[in-house]
This record gives sequence, C-alpha cells and structure tokens, in this order.
Amino acid sequence: MIKASICTIGDEILIGQVIDTNSSSISLALNEIGVKVSRMVSIGDERNCIIGTLARELNENDIVIVTGGLGPTKDDITKNALAELSESTAFKMDERQLEIIHNLLSARGLDVLDINIAQASVPDTCEVIPNRLGTAPIMVFRFDEKRFGHPATLFSLPGVPFEAIGALPDILEDIKSHHSLSDIYHRTVMTYGIAESALAKMIEEWEDNLPEDMHLAYLPNPLTGVRLRLSIYGSRKEDAERRIDAEIASLKGILGDAMYSEMDDTLEGCIGRILTENGKTLSAAESCTGGTISSLITSIAGSSAYFLGSVTSYANSVKTGVLGVAEEIISRYGAVSSECVAAMAEGVRKLTGSDYSVATSGIAGPGGGSDHKPVGLVWIGVSSEKGTETFCAVFKSNRKRNIERFASTALNYLRVKIVNELK
Amino acid sequence: MIKASICTIGDEILIGQVIDTNSSSISLALNEIGVKVSRMVSIGDERNCIIGTLARELNENDIVIVTGGLGPTKDDITKNALAELSESTAFKMDERQLEIIHNLLSARGLDVLDINIAQASVPDTCEVIPNRLGTAPIMVFRFDEKRFGHPATLFSLPGVPFEAIGALPDILEDIKSHHSLSDIYHRTVMTYGIAESALAKMIEEWEDNLPEDMHLAYLPNPLTGVRLRLSIYGSRKEDAERRIDAEIASLKGILGDAMYSEMDDTLEGCIGRILTENGKTLSAAESCTGGTISSLITSIAGSSAYFLGSVTSYANSVKTGVLGVAEEIISRYGAVSSECVAAMAEGVRKLTGSDYSVATSGIAGPGGGSDHKPVGLVWIGVSSEKGTETFCAVFKSNRKRNIERFASTALNYLRVKIVNELK
Repeated sequence: MIKASICTIGDEILIGQVIDTNSSSISLALNEIGVKVSRMVSIGDERNCIIGTLARELNENDIVIVTGGLGPTKDDITKNALAELSESTAFKMDERQLEIIHNLLSARGLDVLDINIAQASVPDTCEVIPNRLGTAPIMVFRFDEKRFGHPATLFSLPGVPFEAIGALPDILEDIKSHHSLSDIYHRTVMTYGIAESALAKMIEEWEDNLPEDMHLAYLPNPLTGVRLRLSIYGSRKEDAERRIDAEIASLKGILGDAMYSEMDDTLEGCIGRILTENGKTLSAAESCTGGTISSLITSIAGSSAYFLGSVTSYANSVKTGVLGVAEEIISRYGAVSSECVAAMAEGVRKLTGSDYSVATSGIAGPGGGSDHKPVGLVWIGVSSEKGTETFCAVFKSNRKRNIERFASTALNYLRVKIVNELK
Repeated sequence: MIKASICTIGDEILIGQVIDTNSSSISLALNEIGVKVSRMVSIGDERNCIIGTLARELNENDIVIVTGGLGPTKDDITKNALAELSESTAFKMDERQLEIIHNLLSARGLDVLDINIAQASVPDTCEVIPNRLGTAPIMVFRFDEKRFGHPATLFSLPGVPFEAIGALPDILEDIKSHHSLSDIYHRTVMTYGIAESALAKMIEEWEDNLPEDMHLAYLPNPLTGVRLRLSIYGSRKEDAERRIDAEIASLKGILGDAMYSEMDDTLEGCIGRILTENGKTLSAAESCTGGTISSLITSIAGSSAYFLGSVTSYANSVKTGVLGVAEEIISRYGAVSSECVAAMAEGVRKLTGSDYSVATSGIAGPGGGSDHKPVGLVWIGVSSEKGTETFCAVFKSNRKRNIERFASTALNYLRVKIVNELK
C-alpha cells in the first residue's frame, strides 16, 4: 500500500496560534484514492529541521506532502530548504505562475511587488503545477531510488487552506498517474444522544462479530454526536460496499432512532434533506445559542429553500417585543424556562410563517447561574402545527462548548420531531 | 531550552475525519512557560508505530506529551503501548480515578461498566494525575538518562479536547517543578483590511531594523485579519515587554487604524470592549451570513450587556415583515443591494432600540449569482443615530469561507464606525 506523510511548516502552528486544518483536508483526499497516511508532522520555520524531517519522512514514505512556508514574507523559508534537500544549484522563473501573480494582484487593484515576482522563482530540480488561487506555485520534487532506497515524491503546497485544498485535484491526478493504488473503503454512520461508552456496550456483541479485515472507530464530536467509522482495507469496492451495508443494517436494528444517518453527515444536513424532500420550512428563535443554530442551518448550500429566518432574542425586550413572549411568562418563570422557550418557538413560527421552529434559552456561562438554574442549563422548544414540546438538559463545560452542545441538542430534538411527524 | 514534542494518537486524525485541536492548546500553554515545542506528530492506533514514534520523540526531546487512544473502546491501545515502552510488567488500579469514574457516571445516571472500571487500571511504571473531567487517568512516565541519553518525561492525556485542556494546569506544574525554564515572550497585534504581502511591504523597513533576537511572524486568518507576532527568546520579561512596547508603538504609527488591537484579539472582542466602555448597545440583521455575526458577537462572555439581538432574514418575507424593508426596495434594487442593507440596518436598530446595528446581504454560493451580482458579492450596512453607511466587497471562495469573510468584513466596518463616532 502506498504510504504518505503530511508535513506542515510554520512557527505559528508550533506556538499554537494557528490550528492546522490542511493535514485533515489532505488526508481525507488521500484516503479516498487509497493512499494510507502514516503520519502527520508539524515543524517550525527552521532550515535544518525542515531538511532533516523531510528527509526522514521521504525515507519512510512513498509520498510526502508539505504545506506552508511559501509566503512572500521573510519568515517563509521552505523553498530554500527544498532547494538544498533536492541539491538544486539554480532557480528558474515559472512564466505561467508569474502570469497568474500579475492577474491576481491586478484584479485586486494591487501593485506587483518584487517579493510577489520572487514567488514565481523555483529550484530547477522541481516541476511546477500552477496555483490558480494564489501567488505561490505548487512544486513537485521526484527523487529516484538511489536517494531514499525507493522512488519518492515530495509535493510542496501553499499553507493558505483555501489554496492548499484547491491544489489537491492536481496532486491526486499526479499520484494516480504514477502509482497503482490498492483499495480502501470507509463508511461512517452518525449517532446522537448516546455517550461513547454506553454506545460501545450496546454494540459490543455486534463489534465482536465483525470480520477480521473490518475495523471500527468511535469518533465523538459535540456538534454531530458519536460517529462510527467502518473501514475495510484491500477489498474491492463493490464487495466492501455490500459487506458494510449488511453490517450497518444490523447496527441500525440495534441503535434505531439514535442512528440519524448512514453516511458522514451533520444534524443540520440531515434536517435540511428531510425538509427539502417534504417541502416544509423552518425558523429559529435563539437566546443562549446566539445565532449558532441559524449559522449551522445556513452553512448548508440550498438552505434558503427551507430556512425562512431566525430571531436572536438576547435581550428580554426582544423576546417580548419581537417574538411576542408575554411579559408575565418572563416575570413568573424566568427567561430560562419551559414556558419561555415554548412561547419563543411559537412566536417565531407565527412571525415567519414557517412549518417548524426551534427555540433555545439557557445559561452558557461563565457567569449568570444560580443553584436553581446552574450554568450549563438549557431549555429547548420545538414547535409545529401539531404542537409544541420542550426539553431541558444540563452540560458542564466552558462557554464555547456549552453553546455548541446547546445547539446540537436542539437540532437533534428538532430532527426527531420532524422525522416522527413526516414519516 | 527545554524542548517538547506533542504526539496525538488516533486513526480518526490520519484519515482526516477529526481535526487535531489538542496540539494547538497544549503548545500555547507550553510556550507560555518557556518550553519550546519542536515538533507535533499525529500517528494511528498501531502498537509498533506508537512505540517507535514515542521512543524517537523521547530521544530528541525532554518532554513528550501524548493525547488520545485512552478511550474505553477496543480501538484505543495507547495504554498497552505505553506499558511496553516503559517495560511495565504489571498493571495497578488507581483508586482515586476509580472513585472519579463512579462519581462521573452516577451523576449522569449511567451504570459503571467493566470497560469503565478498566480505565482506572494503569501500568505500574507510571505516576497518575487524576482526571476530574473524565474517566481516563493522566499518566506520567519518567525515564532516566540511561534510557534516552537524557532524562525524559512522557505525559499521557485523554484525547477529548475538554479533558486534555483541563489536565494542562497539573502538567505545567509538574514541568515547572522538574525543570528550570528559560524565558520566552510573545506579543501579537491585530490588523484588518490589508493583505499579507501589502502589509509586508508597508512595514519592510521597520521589520529590517528589528533587533537580532526579535522574530516577526505573519499569521493571516479570514476571521480576524493578519495577526503579527513578535517573539523574543532568552530575555527577561520586563526587559522584553519594554522593548516590544517600543517596537509596537512605531508599528502603530505606520499602520494606523488598520491595527485594531495591541494584544491577541478578535474583531468581536474589540467591539465588545468599546461598547461596554461607552455603555452603547448593538443589534444585527443578517441575510447571507445566516447568524454568523450574531454567533461571533455572543461568543464573548458578557456580550448580553451590549448585544440586544438580531434577525436572520433569510427569506425576503422576513426582511419586509419583520425588519420593515419596503417591498419596493427589494423589487427595484434586489435583496443584495446598498438600499436593502441600509433598510435592514435601520430596521433592526428600530426594532431592538439599539444604538448601533450591522446588516449583511450577499451571495455566499455555490449557486445564485449573476453577471451583475456574482457569487461572493456582499453588501454591508452599519447604522447609528448619526447615520447609515453601506459598503460592498467581493470574495472568491467557497460558501463557508465566503460567509466567514462577509462576517469579518462587516464586523470591521462596524468597528471603524464605532471607533470614529465614540473617540
């Protein structure tokens, strides 16, 4: 099996100011074509460390994909390190990239500076794939087996995630044209509402009976629930699909409604599909989640077909004045109450004319809680013409994570209501 | 200088389904106490790979911090690999962790299963730091210099980010009590609205004149603008602070209003501070940004003091019916227009009674554009009692990134208006 290593270069990653998302995007793409990612490494902008680490990764892998350190500024030194690693004695100007640089900068009304032009200059030991989305070219270095004991290819990509992802189709084409790839097959199913260890216990017998070449992984995520991933290496696709379909059918029998999708999905994606299929619409009224539910729903392309809008009623005056929550409800029960979220859900459904609505009111923290209503408490309301239901839950985390859990729990209650009413 | 390596373990990272955020949190914390992170490595749940990689990292570093692979389920094998690496011949039960497991699970109303109890069992070669936030204990393995040529310590943390971060204070205490640490000092200033290469050109002379021991890094981010980070290694804190303050003062002279904060900050954090200081309030009306602006503003603890609420007016009926945008504006100019965002901004300010408001309407894509109004076009309106202004911008990216850029550009216009009116 072809093995790859992904190396990200940049001091900003090592001091923790930037989270590396490129490695994840690249490994997703490599796995899809059957290249196994054996390791991801992040190192700083230090010449010797770059050269040493890349040589080691080339020794142990067929493919090394490098991102970062190609910017126009003085702290970016990857290109010089690659020149040394590949024993380049001269640089060459890549005319295609130079043209792209001129076009990109003039489209933005910017002058072409010397440091921009220098980005089109590359070591003479590499092939260039033009980067149409940015100024730094994509470089391909091919090493013969004399150098590392086996043929090895190094791809150097820009660190800007948008440009790195944009380069992937060309990189994958290059890899496919140079290697005969073995098969790998992954399927992910989505669950919500069962903790990882309880889930493991529920499906223990099923897991124990999985065939030898099938591997199961648990991937908990506060926004999507626990994902279960089944992988088969070395099997033909049709065969793998058929065998995994059968295993997932038994799993569905065990998990029932808690399994909300048989593919890699999100709660908001799942809700969007059901609403679209049934021609129904949705609105939201958010207090403690502050726009997060609305932002998740509208992250889905095409959501304008079913999402009419939302009101973030952070102040009580917006709850009463815009959503029509009776002042008496707030004074008698408080804004964080079953009565209030029910009135919010009904209010926003009336205001927008939607078929369904979801509402939240809670205490995200760090301050604002009481013995009776602790930080982490959320009330959730879901409403349709068939009625309004409310639920409450308590999470014990920091503000950011509490808001995420409030939002995903609300989306899950909404999903269950929609599924039950529309099935 | 004490060197550390951070290793994350888990197939889910290598196949790209989970983005590693632990490494970033851990390296931020290590840098703050003057430990230099030399490398971050991610590897899969494979015994030999875990043992080989950790031995190599222990060879080259004083400290190795491992996260992941400690879950209760069968795919988690880190603990057995650590037993082998540390030549443990037996496991011991940690009674403190066992008690925590019982308390945590019973608080959630869950049964204590055998696989939960097994989590409190650890190799007899390690010291245990209790994990109060989860079931897997934190393990500390100390190797003497005979093993790796120098004393080396390995800390094993749970992979769940909330628990890994929760373990850091104890880990940092342990490191500080075993090492005499040298000094490191970072400062970050925030800029918005100038592209990285133009910024580099603007500050080239200043950058060239920085002292030898001061290092500058550019950290572009679509949500916050370009961050500039100055670092000094080996200098005393008061000394480093004084010298960096002087450099930042000159930088402020060059960048003016484009430098929005002299510390690591966000646009929404900066806006929140100014509004709080001046006792002013804010509301938002979002179309294309779908709740993202509101969600960013309410991510700040204490935002309920100045943020009254928002309306996500995805459907035109919500723009007219809730925000009071005249139907004639939409039919004559379209929903994506200067006239519409001005009416939205004024509408939501009137609806909520806020001092300031911000509004967006644009085309996030992938579909929905035209020659006249392409995908990536956004109109932004900002309003106060002193008047309403509108701006437009075009970004050329995917849906997610366009929405992020729309939101941050809108927050920046809002910031500039607030700063100019309140200064």
